[in-house]
Amino acid sequence: MREHGKASDSELPTVSRRGFLGGAGALAGGLAATGLVGGASPAGAEVCGLEWGPRVDLTGLKENFAPQEVKQFTIPAGGIDHLGLHSTDVFTIPGMGEFSVDFSGYFRVARAHPSTFDWAAAEVRVNIVDLRLFGRNEALGEIAVRLNPDILSSGQIFATKPREDGNSVAEEPKACRIATAAVFELRKLGLSVFNKEPILLMNEHITRVPPVDDPSGHALLFRLPLYNLQDPKGEPVAYLTSLRYGADHYLTEGEVRTIKERS
Amino acid sequence: MREHGKASDSELPTVSRRGFLGGAGALAGGLAATGLVGGASPAGAEVCGLEWGPRVDLTGLKENFAPQEVKQFTIPAGGIDHLGLHSTDVFTIPGMGEFSVDFSGYFRVARAHPSTFDWAAAEVRVNIVDLRLFGRNEALGEIAVRLNPDILSSGQIFATKPREDGNSVAEEPKACRIATAAVFELRKLGLSVFNKEPILLMNEHITRVPPVDDPSGHALLFRLPLYNLQDPKGEPVAYLTSLRYGADHYLTEGEVRTIKERS
Repeated sequence: MREHGKASDSELPTVSRRGFLGGAGALAGGLAATGLVGGASPAGAEVCGLEWGPRVDLTGLKENFAPQEVKQFTIPAGGIDHLGLHSTDVFTIPGMGEFSVDFSGYFRVARAHPSTFDWAAAEVRVNIVDLRLFGRNEALGEIAVRLNPDILSSGQIFATKPREDGNSVAEEPKACRIATAAVFELRKLGLSVFNKEPILLMNEHITRVPPVDDPSGHALLFRLPLYNLQDPKGEPVAYLTSLRYGADHYLTEGEVRTIKERS
Repeated sequence: MREHGKASDSELPTVSRRGFLGGAGALAGGLAATGLVGGASPAGAEVCGLEWGPRVDLTGLKENFAPQEVKQFTIPAGGIDHLGLHSTDVFTIPGMGEFSVDFSGYFRVARAHPSTFDWAAAEVRVNIVDLRLFGRNEALGEIAVRLNPDILSSGQIFATKPREDGNSVAEEPKACRIATAAVFELRKLGLSVFNKEPILLMNEHITRVPPVDDPSGHALLFRLPLYNLQDPKGEPVAYLTSLRYGADHYLTEGEVRTIKERS
């Protein structure tokens, strides 16, 4: 198992580094590599602290592929989950119009060991450590989505609210939020865009951890600006106006490999 | 007139630098000051590109104080507005409970020259360049809010949606969003907290630019994590769960001075 930052670096070596950081990120990354700034890691995210929440320590976490049994109202030990994922995203592109795109693919989620195994009281820290989605729209052509390696996508699963009498409820849905940094490659347009503000994936009705076969996720956003990776300091070139998603079930190692090999 | 980054630096010299950037930000800032990284500015934001949207060029923008006339459905030339501001924020602090706090104070908003003076078509880029709010809660004591100088708080006022027939509507409310980075000083607790994800101030019914005497703003957020400035990489120590705000009218230079002198 490799560490998140390094895996992302080696697999996605070039264009994303310019994203949120602009030229300065690449500069700082370069300095880190020479030992002038920071330390061992060349990742801009670590030098500049572009972390939208705490980092999950991957040490010792088990890689979870299909088949897995996921029980309702049960908190499992931490692990790295490989789950199918689908979404429907609506983009507005000034001068072009509004476009709805269906995506499917997978995400790899590092799920820390829980604060407790009590369903209601448990808090769980999560990071998205890989993301691959593919979609198609007649006007926009093929669109590929991947994780932005310059920013740590971090989130958490919350304890349920205590009841009025102060006692927690054993079988109550939990809430989850993940601040997500992505790159959308609109290949027909020759345009890759990324978000500087999180795409906040959220779900207030989780009855399983991880939330497999749960189609009810959405992103909390309002005209989220998307920036051109080739002009990261410029004005937004597109907006994400709506996103609904569903986590599917665990994938096999072979299914994950097939998705990752699709370019 | 001083530049945003520099003004913030000189007025708020120490603690905020550790915020989003962690130790690395201070390091990069220090290197910038020595000329090893970046350029002239010691601001971490410029070295590391922590900008939640484009920067407004302040050159030549007029400083606007009371009295000002603000006409409905009219786009003014760019300027730097000094407006009264009030908000009601709800915080959840694990182990302590939920707290609603009323704040009042001011914000200083750099408003770029518009893309056009046509109300419906105009797009306007804005940055919050200063923010001072003061509130009090019986349990939490005095709370002061200020802008986080490590992150550029950037936003925009949008063109109205074209009608079905493709023509724009002359007198239609405009929408506005500003991604805001703040520091909340909970003085009685000896705790200062900040947000790593934007507090997204938004308003979908703006009939004046700037939106003076408009109480209908709110923040789009879901359990927004707040981090301890003294432990920026740790787990969240509080959450902002609701925020409603209203922009008041222009303040005089004397009123702004009084607010800024309050510490």
